[in-house]
Amino acid sequence: MSPERTITIYGPGLLGGSLALAIQQRFPDAELRLWARRDSAAEAIRAKGIKARCLADAVAAASRASLIILCTPVETMPALAAQIAQADLPADCLITDVGSVKGSVVRALSPILGTRFIGSHPMAGSEKAGIETARADLFQNAVCLLTPIEGADTSRLRTFWQALGCRILEMTPDEHDQKVARISHLPHMMAAVTTIAALRGDPAAVACVANGFRDTTRVAGGDPGLWTGIARENRPALIGCLREASAILTELLEILSKPDDEALRRFLAEAKALRESLPAAAP
Amino acid sequence: MSPERTITIYGPGLLGGSLALAIQQRFPDAELRLWARRDSAAEAIRAKGIKARCLADAVAAASRASLIILCTPVETMPALAAQIAQADLPADCLITDVGSVKGSVVRALSPILGTRFIGSHPMAGSEKAGIETARADLFQNAVCLLTPIEGADTSRLRTFWQALGCRILEMTPDEHDQKVARISHLPHMMAAVTTIAALRGDPAAVACVANGFRDTTRVAGGDPGLWTGIARENRPALIGCLREASAILTELLEILSKPDDEALRRFLAEAKALRESLPAAAP
Repeated sequence: MSPERTITIYGPGLLGGSLALAIQQRFPDAELRLWARRDSAAEAIRAKGIKARCLADAVAAASRASLIILCTPVETMPALAAQIAQADLPADCLITDVGSVKGSVVRALSPILGTRFIGSHPMAGSEKAGIETARADLFQNAVCLLTPIEGADTSRLRTFWQALGCRILEMTPDEHDQKVARISHLPHMMAAVTTIAALRGDPAAVACVANGFRDTTRVAGGDPGLWTGIARENRPALIGCLREASAILTELLEILSKPDDEALRRFLAEAKALRESLPAAAP
Repeated sequence: MSPERTITIYGPGLLGGSLALAIQQRFPDAELRLWARRDSAAEAIRAKGIKARCLADAVAAASRASLIILCTPVETMPALAAQIAQADLPADCLITDVGSVKGSVVRALSPILGTRFIGSHPMAGSEKAGIETARADLFQNAVCLLTPIEGADTSRLRTFWQALGCRILEMTPDEHDQKVARISHLPHMMAAVTTIAALRGDPAAVACVANGFRDTTRVAGGDPGLWTGIARENRPALIGCLREASAILTELLEILSKPDDEALRRFLAEAKALRESLPAAAP
């Protein structure tokens, strides 16, 4: 029998809602609970076909849960963890989150929850937010990064994410934040910079856009509040990456100003080779 | 009867090959010719199911053609135009191109070909190159920018591109180059900068990538030689856009360094609003 008897998800947005849908498919015997601050969430949850008990009391939602997953903005997690710690938790209770930063989350939650908490970061999402955009296959073929502290056993959490279709990588919380600054937070900010640079001075140029612009700037459509929180929590690593990007942009401007076609060809060939080093996308 | 009796395409790559496939569907009565420098191209053309006469002689390929479309790299177009001008062209011969820059192309080709030449730029393509990647629906729902010189009648060219599924915008060659620098050449270079900034210092971070990184950097996989040519031909406009991007990146770094969460939220909200001003993507 699966150890995931009762699963509580905190925060029914895109990630929490998608998790609920995926858990319904893959763990049909588990009792599913959703904690949402607003009562109005219950209707949206039902409308997505999620069969779960909806609770607004954070302590009651955790009571006797075997698996707890925090899907709220990272800045709300410490207060939730403090409430969860007050609940009647079974001995095998496993707690995780899906936040985009791990250093600050793990440093805040581990003292409260101990080794029963292990940070997760499934690399899946969308520029769209809200439970309306949730889908059961969101985690299929995504990488899920786990950031256990010393003494934590990840085997059960690995099995859980693998059941949802994820490939697992383990690393320290700080290593996570460095890598994710590079491949998620940096591209997000660069998409915003590109969008503003392209259109602030000539909004009418939007009439000419093609797929290249759409793709390059897609994530700039993400929620400003959510991304302000992520940037705050991973500020030093993000600033480091953006300074690197600024230096590389200066390098490119120098090449173009000379102009040096051969150097430009080498610059673009370096980008192409790095781009082609990506693992093949899932079909 | 359609005026497009005999159509010659110069350069059977992604764009030329896709044009050939689309023309076969939409102008089944037209005689189709493809000019390619290499004899080996004929086999790849046949393998794509394109029924066309393949010619390696640029003058013979133009002879008695009612519509000529240049799909070669922009730097090769002036020499081709000089050869086409020597051919036996019918009075109603219409000549266009699909190059990504228009100022330099129109300035070079108009003195040779007169008002029978009108620049086109269908905003369609891919980071992949070569006739193997050609597809008949490449132009479906794309914007096609026309850049007629004074005295040129665009009605027939509009009808042609509309038959292939394009929406038409007309502007001057210089206006084209400014707008396209913003919404195509800038994003291309920013995708390259983002890719290098993310991965040059830690190539192993590639193991963590998700769809956000894939989309933001997709066009960085484009052909370095082709894009070096495009950057050369549209250098002043591109440098202007990249300097703007550099200033905006500095603005972002200052916001993050303070840090000023409210200013960051405004910055990201500006990007989101501009991103959402894009016309809806074709289904």
